[in-house]
Amino acid sequence: MKRRIGIMTGGGDAPGLNAVIRAFVKRGVGQLGWEVIGIEDSLNGLLDTPHRLQCLTMRSCQGLLHRGGTILGTTNRGNPFEYPMPDGSVANRADEIAQAFRDEGLEGLVGIGGDGTQKISLRLMEDCGIPVVGVPKTIDNDLSATDFTFGFQSAVDCATDALDRLHTTAESHERVMFLEVMGRDAGHIALHAGIAGGADIILLPEIPYDPQRLADKVKRRQKIGRLFTIVMVAEGAVPLALAELSAEERKQRLSEAGGAAHVAMESMRPISDAEMRVCVLGHLQRGGGPVPFDRLLATRFGVGAVDLVEQDRWGEMVRLKNGVIDGVPIKDAIAVYRLVDTEGQLVSAARAVGIELGA
Amino acid sequence: MKRRIGIMTGGGDAPGLNAVIRAFVKRGVGQLGWEVIGIEDSLNGLLDTPHRLQCLTMRSCQGLLHRGGTILGTTNRGNPFEYPMPDGSVANRADEIAQAFRDEGLEGLVGIGGDGTQKISLRLMEDCGIPVVGVPKTIDNDLSATDFTFGFQSAVDCATDALDRLHTTAESHERVMFLEVMGRDAGHIALHAGIAGGADIILLPEIPYDPQRLADKVKRRQKIGRLFTIVMVAEGAVPLALAELSAEERKQRLSEAGGAAHVAMESMRPISDAEMRVCVLGHLQRGGGPVPFDRLLATRFGVGAVDLVEQDRWGEMVRLKNGVIDGVPIKDAIAVYRLVDTEGQLVSAARAVGIELGA
Amino acid sequence: MKRRIGIMTGGGDAPGLNAVIRAFVKRGVGQLGWEVIGIEDSLNGLLDTPHRLQCLTMRSCQGLLHRGGTILGTTNRGNPFEYPMPDGSVANRADEIAQAFRDEGLEGLVGIGGDGTQKISLRLMEDCGIPVVGVPKTIDNDLSATDFTFGFQSAVDCATDALDRLHTTAESHERVMFLEVMGRDAGHIALHAGIAGGADIILLPEIPYDPQRLADKVKRRQKIGRLFTIVMVAEGAVPLALAELSAEERKQRLSEAGGAAHVAMESMRPISDAEMRVCVLGHLQRGGGPVPFDRLLATRFGVGAVDLVEQDRWGEMVRLKNGVIDGVPIKDAIAVYRLVDTEGQLVSAARAVGIELGA
Amino acid sequence: MKRRIGIMTGGGDAPGLNAVIRAFVKRGVGQLGWEVIGIEDSLNGLLDTPHRLQCLTMRSCQGLLHRGGTILGTTNRGNPFEYPMPDGSVANRADEIAQAFRDEGLEGLVGIGGDGTQKISLRLMEDCGIPVVGVPKTIDNDLSATDFTFGFQSAVDCATDALDRLHTTAESHERVMFLEVMGRDAGHIALHAGIAGGADIILLPEIPYDPQRLADKVKRRQKIGRLFTIVMVAEGAVPLALAELSAEERKQRLSEAGGAAHVAMESMRPISDAEMRVCVLGHLQRGGGPVPFDRLLATRFGVGAVDLVEQDRWGEMVRLKNGVIDGVPIKDAIAVYRLVDTEGQLVSAARAVGIELGA
Repeated sequence: MKRRIGIMTGGGDAPGLNAVIRAFVKRGVGQLGWEVIGIEDSLNGLLDTPHRLQCLTMRSCQGLLHRGGTILGTTNRGNPFEYPMPDGSVANRADEIAQAFRDEGLEGLVGIGGDGTQKISLRLMEDCGIPVVGVPKTIDNDLSATDFTFGFQSAVDCATDALDRLHTTAESHERVMFLEVMGRDAGHIALHAGIAGGADIILLPEIPYDPQRLADKVKRRQKIGRLFTIVMVAEGAVPLALAELSAEERKQRLSEAGGAAHVAMESMRPISDAEMRVCVLGHLQRGGGPVPFDRLLATRFGVGAVDLVEQDRWGEMVRLKNGVIDGVPIKDAIAVYRLVDTEGQLVSAARAVGIELGA
Repeated sequence: MKRRIGIMTGGGDAPGLNAVIRAFVKRGVGQLGWEVIGIEDSLNGLLDTPHRLQCLTMRSCQGLLHRGGTILGTTNRGNPFEYPMPDGSVANRADEIAQAFRDEGLEGLVGIGGDGTQKISLRLMEDCGIPVVGVPKTIDNDLSATDFTFGFQSAVDCATDALDRLHTTAESHERVMFLEVMGRDAGHIALHAGIAGGADIILLPEIPYDPQRLADKVKRRQKIGRLFTIVMVAEGAVPLALAELSAEERKQRLSEAGGAAHVAMESMRPISDAEMRVCVLGHLQRGGGPVPFDRLLATRFGVGAVDLVEQDRWGEMVRLKNGVIDGVPIKDAIAVYRLVDTEGQLVSAARAVGIELGA
Repeated sequence: MKRRIGIMTGGGDAPGLNAVIRAFVKRGVGQLGWEVIGIEDSLNGLLDTPHRLQCLTMRSCQGLLHRGGTILGTTNRGNPFEYPMPDGSVANRADEIAQAFRDEGLEGLVGIGGDGTQKISLRLMEDCGIPVVGVPKTIDNDLSATDFTFGFQSAVDCATDALDRLHTTAESHERVMFLEVMGRDAGHIALHAGIAGGADIILLPEIPYDPQRLADKVKRRQKIGRLFTIVMVAEGAVPLALAELSAEERKQRLSEAGGAAHVAMESMRPISDAEMRVCVLGHLQRGGGPVPFDRLLATRFGVGAVDLVEQDRWGEMVRLKNGVIDGVPIKDAIAVYRLVDTEGQLVSAARAVGIELGA
Repeated sequence: MKRRIGIMTGGGDAPGLNAVIRAFVKRGVGQLGWEVIGIEDSLNGLLDTPHRLQCLTMRSCQGLLHRGGTILGTTNRGNPFEYPMPDGSVANRADEIAQAFRDEGLEGLVGIGGDGTQKISLRLMEDCGIPVVGVPKTIDNDLSATDFTFGFQSAVDCATDALDRLHTTAESHERVMFLEVMGRDAGHIALHAGIAGGADIILLPEIPYDPQRLADKVKRRQKIGRLFTIVMVAEGAVPLALAELSAEERKQRLSEAGGAAHVAMESMRPISDAEMRVCVLGHLQRGGGPVPFDRLLATRFGVGAVDLVEQDRWGEMVRLKNGVIDGVPIKDAIAVYRLVDTEGQLVSAARAVGIELGA
């Protein structure tokens, strides 16, 4: 009998989601003869009546490789284990999902998503007996289990391109320009794009900064005739004054103050006479199609997920380690984050080319 | 004797400034044997001691064609006729400029800049006898005298690219996304890029919008399964409620409320249950190199400016009219703005492809 | 009763075809309530049994704006008036088309295509009574009736980007690099992209070149330390030695010798000791999505075509003249080509910035 | 006393050369206070009289990060150990280089280049006592000692972009399109870009192809309505008929027949009725600025080279292994090529998504 596998995308958008789906279908349907059923909007497609499912065929794959977003949607109305009901109560709807899963004759579930999605998948397997395979997705590239996640390089390219653009404006107007990019807890995008785009200062969540050092850097540049300065700011970067706060409080404070770039600018205001401006890259980083690096990686992840299913390695997640795709138990992989190594080679390289990190 | 001509760039950054300078030098220096002297930072290069000038040679032109910004800088410390002095007073320093101009042996001045720059140029000619030629620069393309200004198409391309990116995110997350682009008074960038990028709604300064129409459009789309909506917002767009205010008051109100896109989002909040997000393109639009269309136009403007100087057509400004480059008296050209023609073909075309303009 | 209009795309690929179709459907179907029927592969969709037609709906339009190629296909098995039959004979199949057209209940035909397509359209109207409206398509922008055709700016951008790339290689290796771009008879792409990309030499079909002048230019550059030279070559450019030949013979000779860029390189070989390389851009210029300029223009053409149909202006073709979209009788528009004006402003501007045109 | 280090770039152009130089100077000059002397045109700058050298300062680094090519030039008149003299003889000029090296007070030499450059460097150290450090450069990414070389991802992006463009044309015209990309011996670019760009067939030097399999693939696609096929061809790919020839003979045969893509097309001609076209990407792949991935890698290589010099690890070459930059003895690194692993994961992934490899 034909295998019948469900696939869903959860959490935020990331360039490459469609490329994973495409590879999974090309291998699963096109070569192994499976049926692959796309569940719409995370797991909501199984909770709605009628179920919202897409039978994914070879034809569905046309044009998917370079298309951003996800054809399955990711709109999530809530964690099925703590589902917010219309009446304001919270319900555990996992059994409904398990029932729907069986009613649809599904044999396994592939969940493409971040930490939250993988945790839910794992619990669906443990509590409800749904066999799951995971594909990691974090545009911030902060999952320790895998060297790279798709979408990250696309975000880096987008942020680098923005830096390139700001350079010309900053130079012509002799300004300090702050560019805020994604990275609540991990500053990988800011660090990669900051080096690649020639930022003068990079502020990371991992390294609380001393505003005086930023002002000094601006002044040193002015002295040698470089009358502009580019500051790359991860959205979780904080000045030393806020460093002792809990993660939650820090986010709160940054949010109230208009974001990390504004906070950085205001922290310099009393000690610098430079003209300063902020630019927030925002949703642009998640959008658009994947760059070739991510298309290839997403394709490999999709093929790897088929391999895990084929070998009944349920409970595992695909990942890239030292250039090789393999599987790792989801329970070992989730919630083991990779922050920027503040003593690592990349931070050293940034400093070696004269980039100020604020501490 | 060699002609010796000064050239300066004034006002905001626009992709193509360097391409104008390059063409002026290639023709003036390389073929006509002139000396071309770049004045740094608008006219400040003539006010500072020593004067800050660059002797522009064929060698200075290398790599300039596709480089954003301006090698001359545009940092402006003030209108020379009402110059803010360190002691807080205001001085007319035009005579100083005229004296410096003559001391440097300059025969004419080419001013590349917007309305403000052209007015100052004209007054320098009328009050102080400095022969001037103008090259128009407005990234908003709102100068009636010329069909196109360089930098505009580059900004349109940048804004369209951003729309393309937002599409995938909006679609995956079923959101209403607002993209705010340049255009305080004239909405050309929003209109061109909005049509080119497939926006669902375009809000222009020229057409105050009814928030109810926006909410209705979102709802109509939801009914046919299009669960996302893209709204392009010029930074001067206002709801009907603010339309009666003076231009100055409107800007004030928009600024206090966090910009036109935020105002549009908040205006819909009470009447729409859609999830909404704002993205402000900001300085990215001015930065980066010029697109080929602008490189060609800027080159033609630079060559045209040489022609005006060669023919001693002082007081004229180069422009493009129906595909032809010629000169027009600066005094006839300035302050004759071109707003979006609300009855024109482009607005009709937008409506014809189903774009809601809010009124 | 609902109007039922056919639409087809003929001839070579051009970025923007889908954007025309999309705008036509959005206006015709979405707002005027027409049925729009896409005929596949030029008119072959009406000659095959069963007919190959697509009912174009609002849904068909999704994602079309920035997609290159044409969803209708353009594979053409021959002019219906001189159709090559499988047995080797040639048949007039226009009556079959007319019959199929009526059988399908079509009221009018919109033909998006070049000169050949428009001529066939016109003859279908005159000989067979099929009401037609034309939308011009020539990536070479060589149709006199319209100031711009969609696809042209996309091709210019592609060619300019290639020039930018070749610059770095040419400079590092001190080479003369020839880039061959489209333009059999008219050199608009080579001229626009050559100026925009900073070519040192541009060779156009309209200006036969003297190889000695090219070699001299290379030598003059070497003398001032510019050890590389970039030559932009339209595919119809010829040296003076071939200028007297008929157009047909010239094409023959160029083709036998490996194309215009090779001929230019070989013509310089005996008189220059520079290291030389050829790059042929080829099909890359036609492919890819349209740039924003072309998306806007194609959208306006699609809307304009609806207007012509709505006003029963059969036999007319949409066009852009001095910024305005209107209609012009097809018979007045076809076969009135616009070559590069060898005395015009663009050629002068090229020379003014030091570009050698070979004569 | 100040250290005084020479740096040179050898062999073909690769995006990222300038970024290596910039990082070396920023670290060496800006932070360690060295003098860094750029030798022009490989080692020729030391052979010419007067020597052609550039004193590289912090100022020389401005704008270098994203600039393609190399500011030092790579024009090479010959291997110094077998130097072709004007009179036709061959001379060993290594001693002259060593003398010039000492005369200039240089303490060490950093050679950025491919296999040939590294071999010469090594011999200069062994035979003439010049202390050398190497930075690997191979756009083909075929050096076993390092996981990635800069320029490779830029070439992959360029080739993928070309594939994207060809797709639309191939689809509209129902053609088989062949795209020839770099890769004489190793097909990494073709494989990476072929997967990333959704090629239907990929032909690699490592896997001689059976033309019948290609024709079958085209036919299978036609049967399911996919009337076009995209073939990615590495420039060293050969049909089975040529597989037994020596590497030299194969190159000869491919060259005589107009290149690998032409050979592939002609091999299919007798067994396929599809319309076929060839596109050769050529020099475009080497040109242009580096993508962000390569900018970061090149920066790390430049910093790593400073580290090797600082630690007097002469005779070593910088490289990236499992994400870490370190040094490896040049003599262990050169001439250990990495071909595409025909049994590896990437080839399997290509097959898993239905790509035909011809064998």
